[in-house]
Amino acid sequence: MTNPPERFELLTDLYELTMAASYFENGMADPATFSLFVRKYPPDRAYFVAAGLEDFLEYAANFQFSESDLAYLDGTGTFSHDFLHYLKNMRFTGTIRALAEGEIFFKDEPILEVTAPIIESQILETFAINTINLQSMIATKAARCVHAAGGRRLVDFSLRRTQGIDAGLKVARSSYIAGFVATSNVLAGKLYGIPISGTMAHSYISSFGDEIEAFRAFARSFPKKTILLIDTYDTVAGARKATIVGQEMAKEGNKLLGVRLDSGDMTQLSQHVRKILDEASLDDTEIFASSSFDEYKIAKSIKEGAKIDAFGVGTRMGVSADAPYFDIAYKLVQYGDRPIMKLSTGKINLPGKKQLFRRTDDKGRFVEDIIGTADETIEGASPLLELVMQDGKLLMRHPSLEEIRKRFRKNLAALDEKYKALDGAHLYPVKLSARLEALLEAASS
Amino acid sequence: MTNPPERFELLTDLYELTMAASYFENGMADPATFSLFVRKYPPDRAYFVAAGLEDFLEYAANFQFSESDLAYLDGTGTFSHDFLHYLKNMRFTGTIRALAEGEIFFKDEPILEVTAPIIESQILETFAINTINLQSMIATKAARCVHAAGGRRLVDFSLRRTQGIDAGLKVARSSYIAGFVATSNVLAGKLYGIPISGTMAHSYISSFGDEIEAFRAFARSFPKKTILLIDTYDTVAGARKATIVGQEMAKEGNKLLGVRLDSGDMTQLSQHVRKILDEASLDDTEIFASSSFDEYKIAKSIKEGAKIDAFGVGTRMGVSADAPYFDIAYKLVQYGDRPIMKLSTGKINLPGKKQLFRRTDDKGRFVEDIIGTADETIEGASPLLELVMQDGKLLMRHPSLEEIRKRFRKNLAALDEKYKALDGAHLYPVKLSARLEALLEAASS
Repeated sequence: MTNPPERFELLTDLYELTMAASYFENGMADPATFSLFVRKYPPDRAYFVAAGLEDFLEYAANFQFSESDLAYLDGTGTFSHDFLHYLKNMRFTGTIRALAEGEIFFKDEPILEVTAPIIESQILETFAINTINLQSMIATKAARCVHAAGGRRLVDFSLRRTQGIDAGLKVARSSYIAGFVATSNVLAGKLYGIPISGTMAHSYISSFGDEIEAFRAFARSFPKKTILLIDTYDTVAGARKATIVGQEMAKEGNKLLGVRLDSGDMTQLSQHVRKILDEASLDDTEIFASSSFDEYKIAKSIKEGAKIDAFGVGTRMGVSADAPYFDIAYKLVQYGDRPIMKLSTGKINLPGKKQLFRRTDDKGRFVEDIIGTADETIEGASPLLELVMQDGKLLMRHPSLEEIRKRFRKNLAALDEKYKALDGAHLYPVKLSARLEALLEAASS
Repeated sequence: MTNPPERFELLTDLYELTMAASYFENGMADPATFSLFVRKYPPDRAYFVAAGLEDFLEYAANFQFSESDLAYLDGTGTFSHDFLHYLKNMRFTGTIRALAEGEIFFKDEPILEVTAPIIESQILETFAINTINLQSMIATKAARCVHAAGGRRLVDFSLRRTQGIDAGLKVARSSYIAGFVATSNVLAGKLYGIPISGTMAHSYISSFGDEIEAFRAFARSFPKKTILLIDTYDTVAGARKATIVGQEMAKEGNKLLGVRLDSGDMTQLSQHVRKILDEASLDDTEIFASSSFDEYKIAKSIKEGAKIDAFGVGTRMGVSADAPYFDIAYKLVQYGDRPIMKLSTGKINLPGKKQLFRRTDDKGRFVEDIIGTADETIEGASPLLELVMQDGKLLMRHPSLEEIRKRFRKNLAALDEKYKALDGAHLYPVKLSARLEALLEAASS
């Protein structure tokens, strides 16, 4: 995408447009509500983190086919001129209710409901799923890493192996929401204001030939920001050389911030290197580790007593390697006044416009969630879906990344430890309200 | 990415820039060669398909920091004004040798070698890995699906769950290279000229309430392009209704192109539905299936005798679900006249500029590959890395997608069946030339 397209209205499945054409020709323009939810937990997951709403809302608010899009569609020979004329003037004029970014949610819970004339709400399907799937999936994976790290700092190192450019940016944003402290992705730093982090690769060391000369050259270039990569040849020998450079830096009033381990046994090496640093009076020099970390390896290292102050977390988080997609759906739940339920094999959805309620205790800790109908109130439980767009207009400013991050931190603290276990063994209670149960029964019969 | 950035020079790891600054301050400007290769086979894989070169070459040829990029970097307080001035004028002036898109390659083989003053070749690392990893990984996964399908048609349905926008586009392109016949991604159709395909979702059927009325409405809208989705309520009952509509279409001189199955047991249902269609004299109406297909499920369905004419292949291909990243690296192999080899734990790379040679038999079938040095010739074997850029200028026009697709088809046919087994049990022979062996020995000692 070196010449990226400027607009993404055509970033959609063709069937959204063929269905739209048929709705148009059949005069079907009643309001339709679509609901977005995750159908099941991937392995080891027992909660999800909402992310991606801002991108979706911007997409909906600015939806407009370009002349070149319409010319392309015309050239396919599939669509009538009347319908293309309709598309030319089409804007999103509907209502959106959604869960804020940074909120924790669970299986089957509606996190986004879009109500608009059916063509408009249908046509947003592909983008809605694409962007919320990716961002919520990565925020969830990153949250697991943050929880496993128990307060140690995590930095997003995933850019080189994220699935493309857009993923690289969204992974940086989603992992920051979940509590990562920085990213190596410079463009994400520029676009989102996320702190950026990084020092050197093995190629830097190799290009000098002599390891300690490479260390010294880097310390000269960045006397206030040096973290030395010490595993190019032999980690222990590299650590000893780093202490020499660290002591040279100290004499000039600077500090060696850290050393980085990138291969080998992280627990043994970090303990050994910590000892070498301490013996050289470099107690403040931190150990940074980056070697195929994910929540499982972070937890294992800490349990084994690794002396690691901060982790570079890359590919496995950046592609959510053990669960690279969610079983996420955007389903028609109401057309006009009629609640809709699909009944085919194993894919039942909850009918009608809904609201998500959460009961918390007096300390704000989560007790249970209740999926209800949109028009009810449930005593002692707070509704979580907020009205964010009406008549196609945004009703709020987007929260800042820092606000979203803070919201997530509060959510994570309010979720009982057992639901955060890395094996996902305990399921948080989610039930249906009596009104929704009744609607479900009526729709099934 | 609703307001996508226009340039991607900052889509890089911060350390590429800190290293560059240090090379700059230390006067290091010798030509450095970096080599890109995949270090190991993911589970079940025994070959790879090269894709992504065009994007990488365009990136290198147009590399230029914008004023706003430089202002952002300046604001980080990390870089000197002299270095930022250097970056402002920096262009890629080097040489690139690469394997053409659509070629098959194997573990450890260099598929891209970049030679340029070290700052220029270093700074391309992140983008090179990102785009070639994604595109080659998807082309490889898609090739396995194509091979498993044994001539049946495959359509890319993955857009909604690809990892972001850029992935959605590149998955459409990569799967088309590997032999898919179309994509549901309309923007990929517009940008790349790939045929687009798609009909209706369950929401279309549900919105009508009455299934057969939905079928009739769609057939009226698209009398020449109707494929009916028949599993919204009950697949067999849906098939019977589809035959009624198919017969009504036939009376008006049209043809029901197909029906689509999207849930349930694909083998049993396809056999049953085939019988229903045949009994209604709709022998030409095809059965299209889309339900979590990947190479394994395609192979299983065919082996069981499923009556499926074409497959919609979605998420599992689109994220390469069982292998969502490659262990791909871009390593410094030469600086100035000095071949470089990194020796740390388990991550050895082959030193020096290299060439990849392939021996074929008199029918063009692959016999063995030899990794050699860049300046040797090997009797009876063809060099595969082509000089594609010199002095920062492209030496060729990019091949068309159709040419790349044809090249891949020829490659796949030339690879012995045993190496294409879905369990990856047989490894194709790749050896090192005597000259490279000697260099490796010299560099190791």
